[in-house]
Amino acid sequence: MDIKMTAADMSAFLDEAFEQVKGDFTVQEVAPNRVTVRLNVQDKHLRPGGTVSGPSIFALADVSAYLVTLAMIGPQALAVTTNCSIDFMRKPASGVDLIAHVTLLKLGKQLSVSDVLVYSEGLDKPVARASLTYAIPPAT
Amino acid sequence: MDIKMTAADMSAFLDEAFEQVKGDFTVQEVAPNRVTVRLNVQDKHLRPGGTVSGPSIFALADVSAYLVTLAMIGPQALAVTTNCSIDFMRKPASGVDLIAHVTLLKLGKQLSVSDVLVYSEGLDKPVARASLTYAIPPAT
Amino acid sequence: MDIKMTAADMSAFLDEAFEQVKGDFTVQEVAPNRVTVRLNVQDKHLRPGGTVSGPSIFALADVSAYLVTLAMIGPQALAVTTNCSIDFMRKPASGVDLIAHVTLLKLGKQLSVSDVLVYSEGLDKPVARASLTYAIPPAT
Amino acid sequence: MDIKMTAADMSAFLDEAFEQVKGDFTVQEVAPNRVTVRLNVQDKHLRPGGTVSGPSIFALADVSAYLVTLAMIGPQALAVTTNCSIDFMRKPASGVDLIAHVTLLKLGKQLSVSDVLVYSEGLDKPVARASLTYAIPPAT
Repeated sequence: MDIKMTAADMSAFLDEAFEQVKGDFTVQEVAPNRVTVRLNVQDKHLRPGGTVSGPSIFALADVSAYLVTLAMIGPQALAVTTNCSIDFMRKPASGVDLIAHVTLLKLGKQLSVSDVLVYSEGLDKPVARASLTYAIPPAT
Repeated sequence: MDIKMTAADMSAFLDEAFEQVKGDFTVQEVAPNRVTVRLNVQDKHLRPGGTVSGPSIFALADVSAYLVTLAMIGPQALAVTTNCSIDFMRKPASGVDLIAHVTLLKLGKQLSVSDVLVYSEGLDKPVARASLTYAIPPAT
Repeated sequence: MDIKMTAADMSAFLDEAFEQVKGDFTVQEVAPNRVTVRLNVQDKHLRPGGTVSGPSIFALADVSAYLVTLAMIGPQALAVTTNCSIDFMRKPASGVDLIAHVTLLKLGKQLSVSDVLVYSEGLDKPVARASLTYAIPPAT
Repeated sequence: MDIKMTAADMSAFLDEAFEQVKGDFTVQEVAPNRVTVRLNVQDKHLRPGGTVSGPSIFALADVSAYLVTLAMIGPQALAVTTNCSIDFMRKPASGVDLIAHVTLLKLGKQLSVSDVLVYSEGLDKPVARASLTYAIPPAT
């Protein structure tokens, strides 16, 4: 199945459609059923001690699952998360960005299911894993 | 089991320990194994269309599970989320705060497990449900 | 919303539609959006030490979420589980049945979401909690 | 980190420690942080139509996460599942076994976290994905 959006398409789409998070995320790579997304860590993402907060890690996993779905169906601002399960496994390293590697496991007519592994940039043990389901609006 | 912190204690603790989210949350009620928490919705919590974003709902569930744990063990800045499962069931109403009702289902030596229901204020069908596990640091 | 099936209807439906688990489950009570289901514990459900196994607790949660959905939409053998998150919190007591209390949190056109608490009969602290999503086939 | 048990060790351990499921599972391959496990599908695992039931898929994911943990820490009959999140994505093919590929993502002192993908043998799209947390008893 072909990719419907490039990394540049996705970054532009995100910044336009979700202005509250403009600049937070950069799409790094896109391949069939796979996307890599960077969280450009800023002060607002941190907790005391300088590590990235749980809600910021969730936000990265959530947007990554959204983007891997859009990569395969094209821009659909109306897809919505219906479920997320996330395990926080290690404290993020301080002073580095987070990188999410997301894999689309299922793309149905109504639902997509994705798996996400989140790493502190440059480290090889994951900070978190998440799986997410998106509901896809009917084609019109 | 007795409550170790009042609603006022918790709100003060949150604002002091987590300055990045100062003013975001208000603890409304505390009872044994139960806490009610308000998300004081602001622009930064919104998505296009004026509804509260998924990551903001996650943040409310996460802090609520943390607070219900602290209510029973006392202030422990070091408790950390290890797992969350969340279902987003309905679009939040626009223009109103979100209210989380959290119940502590288990308080072990190493783990607490909580259930959270999130409502748009004044509405009776939940926006989201979540269950969270916190790892509790060993007493010192 | 009215109940579409009684407890007796459901027990009969289960035994007919799922003969591999005939006799395993008894529907105890039905009310709008709520059902209570008993696992009639037998040797095949046990682990060494005489406690009910994790897969048997999962099976009870799964059938309970199915039944609370059917209670509101009528018999639909084709509804399928799409997601389950389950926390195992305490060892089941040995020598007693398990009782599941399930609440339907959302009934949409395509999905239902339910919350389940599982108890060892006669004890007041839950053995497990689970949330489940069922996909509902389109009406024909 | 070295493997503490071979595939043959694990199959023997399972059959001895969990006689209720004797013969249900075969450990196929073991490597550091990875195990492959087969569900030897029998009548008791089926639903009407000949597909493997949800609880049987859960049981396979659960035992696989247990085994990948034991592979790295050695035989510990007392490790217990604390959490599982599972997505059922496709109907299993009828007439073939299920194969689980499990990866150990974290091995801490108290908890292990694993990711599981379940396939119908010979097919390349996963039937289910699951993530599981096991609590590890303190070394004695």
